[in-house]
Amino acid sequence: MRQFILLMMTTALLAGTAVADDLHETASDMFKPLPSTIPSVADNPITPEKIELGKALFFDPRLSASGVFSCYSCHNLTTGGDDNLETSIGHGWQKGPRNSPTVLNAVLNEAQFWDGRAEDLKAQAKGPIQAGVEMANTPETVIATLKSMPQYEAWFDDAFPGETEPVSFDNLAKAIEAFEATLITPAPFDAYLNGDKNALNEQQKTGLALFIDKGCAACHSGVNVGGHGYYPFGLIEKPGADILPPDDKGRFAVTETVDDEYVFRASPLRNVAVTAPYFHSGKVWSLKVAVQIMAESQLGEELSDEEADAMVAFLESLTGTLPDITLPNLPPETQSTPRPVAEIER
Amino acid sequence: MRQFILLMMTTALLAGTAVADDLHETASDMFKPLPSTIPSVADNPITPEKIELGKALFFDPRLSASGVFSCYSCHNLTTGGDDNLETSIGHGWQKGPRNSPTVLNAVLNEAQFWDGRAEDLKAQAKGPIQAGVEMANTPETVIATLKSMPQYEAWFDDAFPGETEPVSFDNLAKAIEAFEATLITPAPFDAYLNGDKNALNEQQKTGLALFIDKGCAACHSGVNVGGHGYYPFGLIEKPGADILPPDDKGRFAVTETVDDEYVFRASPLRNVAVTAPYFHSGKVWSLKVAVQIMAESQLGEELSDEEADAMVAFLESLTGTLPDITLPNLPPETQSTPRPVAEIER
Repeated sequence: MRQFILLMMTTALLAGTAVADDLHETASDMFKPLPSTIPSVADNPITPEKIELGKALFFDPRLSASGVFSCYSCHNLTTGGDDNLETSIGHGWQKGPRNSPTVLNAVLNEAQFWDGRAEDLKAQAKGPIQAGVEMANTPETVIATLKSMPQYEAWFDDAFPGETEPVSFDNLAKAIEAFEATLITPAPFDAYLNGDKNALNEQQKTGLALFIDKGCAACHSGVNVGGHGYYPFGLIEKPGADILPPDDKGRFAVTETVDDEYVFRASPLRNVAVTAPYFHSGKVWSLKVAVQIMAESQLGEELSDEEADAMVAFLESLTGTLPDITLPNLPPETQSTPRPVAEIER
Repeated sequence: MRQFILLMMTTALLAGTAVADDLHETASDMFKPLPSTIPSVADNPITPEKIELGKALFFDPRLSASGVFSCYSCHNLTTGGDDNLETSIGHGWQKGPRNSPTVLNAVLNEAQFWDGRAEDLKAQAKGPIQAGVEMANTPETVIATLKSMPQYEAWFDDAFPGETEPVSFDNLAKAIEAFEATLITPAPFDAYLNGDKNALNEQQKTGLALFIDKGCAACHSGVNVGGHGYYPFGLIEKPGADILPPDDKGRFAVTETVDDEYVFRASPLRNVAVTAPYFHSGKVWSLKVAVQIMAESQLGEELSDEEADAMVAFLESLTGTLPDITLPNLPPETQSTPRPVAEIER
């Protein structure tokens, strides 16, 4: 009898190992660990000088008309690369239309914004600076601001050597993209994909298996566990108007194709556990509730409490570590720096 | 003739050296270089744990009701420790009544705020968190916010070991004070006071001599070149209402003594060249103009263009270097974290 029990235990352990091996293999097919070096980006060779300039620009509130907001304001690097608000608050205390997505690992998304309307980070970076409800500035004023500070001119010279007009709105965007490309956050899930099968605990492995089996990974896959592909929110069952406001038709605004009504880019899920609230509307603060809503609306699945908890545990394994970021030392304004304008109409 | 010229030159050089020695000696009597270690503060022993906690709190926008503002918002460490606005913009886009003073070296001021109404930084730190036009929060909500995040509870335990209620509004203020005490910025003027007589160039030395001779150093002296003592703005001649708005009576609001009408704490002048705009009203963007206004209103002196330029050159030697500041990694909200409230009336 004792020998039989031992045999049974050995079989169970072996089966467990086989399941674990299978899960690792399946996961390795669907996901990719973060690269160990800064990703390259199209048309923008990344150099240390460009990264440093981009960091200065990212932190500089003088890129906004009011002097109050920088990129960092809504993409706060101390709190997951977003702003922890339903939708961002911008110029004149206006509320933006959508939840601020995290800038962390964003360089690895197929396209930027909830509706993918910017093909990359350098296209994205130009948006909020000009948006009336965000930084409310103009390229002309931004360039005048930068050109008023000799240190910025020198930094642009270093970052874009040999160019006749280094201080340009295009180059500003390229420098910001270069800095943002460094914001890569390796997580326990990367260690797991890289071969450390103990990097996830049992509940997280159960969650990963469910994430694959239930079909979540059909859209949320690849290196960013999402961030590519466009899908209707409410594929099976539309969520209520509180979560999916009828006046925001998503990618329809980009393509003007009826098929794209309420279509959004599949959210990248890295650091999702630290970037509440959820969805483009930012209406859901609980990751567990968000998971349950997604299961119902996209897959027609009602998750048990244990399943949802395991899924959340897996998603927590996507919380990564940001490289150390030292604050830049920004140059002072000069007499020719445009003055901050807090009024809503300039 | 050649020998006579040589003799004259030698005399002039010797006299120059004597003048330089005199200037150094006089300056050493009136000013003090920054300390080489973190200054101690009253009733708040500074520990590495307290500094780290204070840094997290300083950067955390969840200390504000709206989730938009942190201490860092108006005391931006990338731009001289202030916000480069006339007066700060806070909750609901309200304009604060006075220009945001720099947090750099503020630990060495005799008292805090333009009117000195807080005796130290721990008293100061509690003000903006609760001010309706700034962070618009309450101590109760702040404590509920901090207690909702286990990481903060652990950090408070580490910073205030053995206390029965480590997470308190008083301890929050002490931790912020501890972090702020590290924001010390040694400048060329410190090198000069420490004995490197070449740390200032000739124009800066001329400016320093004028600063002393004209009487500026009567109020702006000591380690922070100001930051202690209270004086009426407009001692000799009141500036116009644009610069000295009649409804802000300064220290009168603190002491309710007629003698204190339009009285302010002498501004600490470290980093003044990178913290425009100037005065409590923030109405003057040019340091040279600010110097000229001060000479007229406080000393009844009209400075020549060269004198004002030399004074500005000297003030630029007070621009210091901040220690490297690495962004903290803040804990995520939990389900019990109070949600951000953007409305003006809570």
